[in-house]
Amino acid sequence: MGLIVQKYGGTSVADVDRVKVVAQRVIKNKEAGNDMVVVVSAPAGMTDELIELAHEITDEPPAREMDMLLATGEQHSIALLAMAICNSKHCAISLTGYQAGIRTDNVHSKARITEVQAERITKMLDEGNIVIVAGFQGSTDDDAITTLSRGGSDTSAVALASALEADVCEIYTDVDGVYTADPRIVPEAKKIDTISYEEMLEMASLGAKVLHSRAVEFAGKYNVPLHVRSSFNENQGTIVTKEGEAMEGVVVRGVTHDKNQAKMSIFGVPDRPGIAYSIFKALASAEINVDMIVQTVSKNEKADISFTVSKSDLRDALEIFKKVGENIGITDIAYDEDVAKVSVVGIGMKSHSGVAAEMFEVLAEEDINIQMISTSEIKISCVVKTEDTEKAVKAIHRKFIPS
Amino acid sequence: MGLIVQKYGGTSVADVDRVKVVAQRVIKNKEAGNDMVVVVSAPAGMTDELIELAHEITDEPPAREMDMLLATGEQHSIALLAMAICNSKHCAISLTGYQAGIRTDNVHSKARITEVQAERITKMLDEGNIVIVAGFQGSTDDDAITTLSRGGSDTSAVALASALEADVCEIYTDVDGVYTADPRIVPEAKKIDTISYEEMLEMASLGAKVLHSRAVEFAGKYNVPLHVRSSFNENQGTIVTKEGEAMEGVVVRGVTHDKNQAKMSIFGVPDRPGIAYSIFKALASAEINVDMIVQTVSKNEKADISFTVSKSDLRDALEIFKKVGENIGITDIAYDEDVAKVSVVGIGMKSHSGVAAEMFEVLAEEDINIQMISTSEIKISCVVKTEDTEKAVKAIHRKFIPS
Repeated sequence: MGLIVQKYGGTSVADVDRVKVVAQRVIKNKEAGNDMVVVVSAPAGMTDELIELAHEITDEPPAREMDMLLATGEQHSIALLAMAICNSKHCAISLTGYQAGIRTDNVHSKARITEVQAERITKMLDEGNIVIVAGFQGSTDDDAITTLSRGGSDTSAVALASALEADVCEIYTDVDGVYTADPRIVPEAKKIDTISYEEMLEMASLGAKVLHSRAVEFAGKYNVPLHVRSSFNENQGTIVTKEGEAMEGVVVRGVTHDKNQAKMSIFGVPDRPGIAYSIFKALASAEINVDMIVQTVSKNEKADISFTVSKSDLRDALEIFKKVGENIGITDIAYDEDVAKVSVVGIGMKSHSGVAAEMFEVLAEEDINIQMISTSEIKISCVVKTEDTEKAVKAIHRKFIPS
Repeated sequence: MGLIVQKYGGTSVADVDRVKVVAQRVIKNKEAGNDMVVVVSAPAGMTDELIELAHEITDEPPAREMDMLLATGEQHSIALLAMAICNSKHCAISLTGYQAGIRTDNVHSKARITEVQAERITKMLDEGNIVIVAGFQGSTDDDAITTLSRGGSDTSAVALASALEADVCEIYTDVDGVYTADPRIVPEAKKIDTISYEEMLEMASLGAKVLHSRAVEFAGKYNVPLHVRSSFNENQGTIVTKEGEAMEGVVVRGVTHDKNQAKMSIFGVPDRPGIAYSIFKALASAEINVDMIVQTVSKNEKADISFTVSKSDLRDALEIFKKVGENIGITDIAYDEDVAKVSVVGIGMKSHSGVAAEMFEVLAEEDINIQMISTSEIKISCVVKTEDTEKAVKAIHRKFIPS
């Protein structure tokens, strides 16, 4: 008994039959005495279809209009799910992101939630309704429709759970939870029962696709317990929660990989204060996330800087350097899309030294060249050639995860 | 030069290529120096597809959720059209019904516009934008999404034209204008150059599908000049305007037919004051429009009443009589879906007598039985068997419209 926020992804509402299955699951939870708020994504495939359609109209659809178009996907899902629930003796009301009070900044297509005005949902719950909310979307202060980054429905669910002080936020997906590695690559990978926000955040940022990293950040910040589980069965999934003492016993929680990476290098960067700022400021203004950054030792007061961006941002990043490069004095730019990032994550690393050395040893034994390295307190990432990804993940998993 | 509101129907935005054609037309008008507001419908077929999908979920989708679902259709169109226009040097902004300030009552699926708060559009026009608005939809005072009756995009356009004090409201369709009869039935039917609001209202109510009757009512009330024309060519279409003196010279402006009619008869209605009220009040409360009403002379203080409703309302009407019939004392109910309504319309009838007699004579010569008759100052309608429709329309057109 309590307030549960559930989020169902696109595969869970892909067709009429699946929508009915979700409706049954929601009703069961309601009949167990819970207040229910349900966040849904667009039906699987619809968002991609709409993007394709937009590109048939114009090569560069304005982001505002793209958001207007894409927002129809979730609106489609919420209406159908509400209808399916209303077909029982229960009453459901669907709300768009705007109607649900999800306010965002005005960065169309990559908007961030600034506030959730939850009074309307609270009132509807008090009246006994099941409330269905469109994920992935919100609205600006002047009522323009925005969409969050892809996968943003997770973030919508967590933001609502936080604003409503829900007891748990259940993220339904097509797998049983978060795994120690991608089971398609590592068949012996195991489901993780409990993981800290910090670890999950690293795993999500590093390529574990089961949760959107912004959602984990939000959950951690507002201490919303997440439960990642399958919509196809009743199995207990993975609980994402605050770091507990028992967690430190595990050195490496999981191994991730991310092939959606590109490496950029800029040469001849003048070695004086403020230059790095002006470079990365330009990328940040364009909402391009830069990940690993390596600067070579300066020669003749010039340095070379390498960094990674997601493949989808590469073209934009190159454009920016064409513009700002000359002013800064950059002599040359190179890029490589044939790279992947392989990482290990674990809170236990805080109190265990030597994990990095062991990881490098494993890769050396497999004859895999490491192009870039970056570390934090709880993760180590290496950039390798794309073709080495699977071999690297398998070997690292074998080394660190007890079978 | 001025402010033009244009409305394009579903066939005009059915696919990417047609959307681009509409964009070109809008841009041409803008470049001629006009401020442009463009209202669009959902792509042809999409609304029907969504309705079908909803019925796969449940036999009785709640009207609120149906509106939520259907509203995605126009939202789809406005985003694509805005993108197509932005692909030129012009700037377009799309607005949902809610965003455009179209407020309605809360009768979901048959909402009526109560107010247009046009400040936002005015501001956008002042900034040089072309404004694209989703037709057929609005929102209630508490921000629920509503849809108007089918064909309601016409009404959206007229309401906006009125609120913005537009110079003209152009309704684009797939025919050249309003015809003296349906050209598929009467090949010699002619395009009408000018028609009064009153005549157009009767024609629309009586089955001429080119304009939605609520839109004509609105246009007449606020004196918004309408121009009904084809989106496939530049021909002058039909102007709908205030009654002028010259108009009375034409006795019959047009002949219409409507096969979407059902006849209901209720028997044994007690002949006392207030009974008709309680019958038709029950239908009105369910938003069922009753058209022709005929009451037989009373026998034994009981009367029989026949009336017509649209075929789509027949089931609901029968349900209502099952409920209220007993209280009132109705002994039996009958209905007939195999009927059609054939009508002649013309302001000139006000000053010409004998049109009804001539119409009955024509039908008698064709051996067509008249089941019900209803007249107003400017129209005469007869209910006939469905199979007689074409024959009746042809004969009446031949009689009244000069070739």
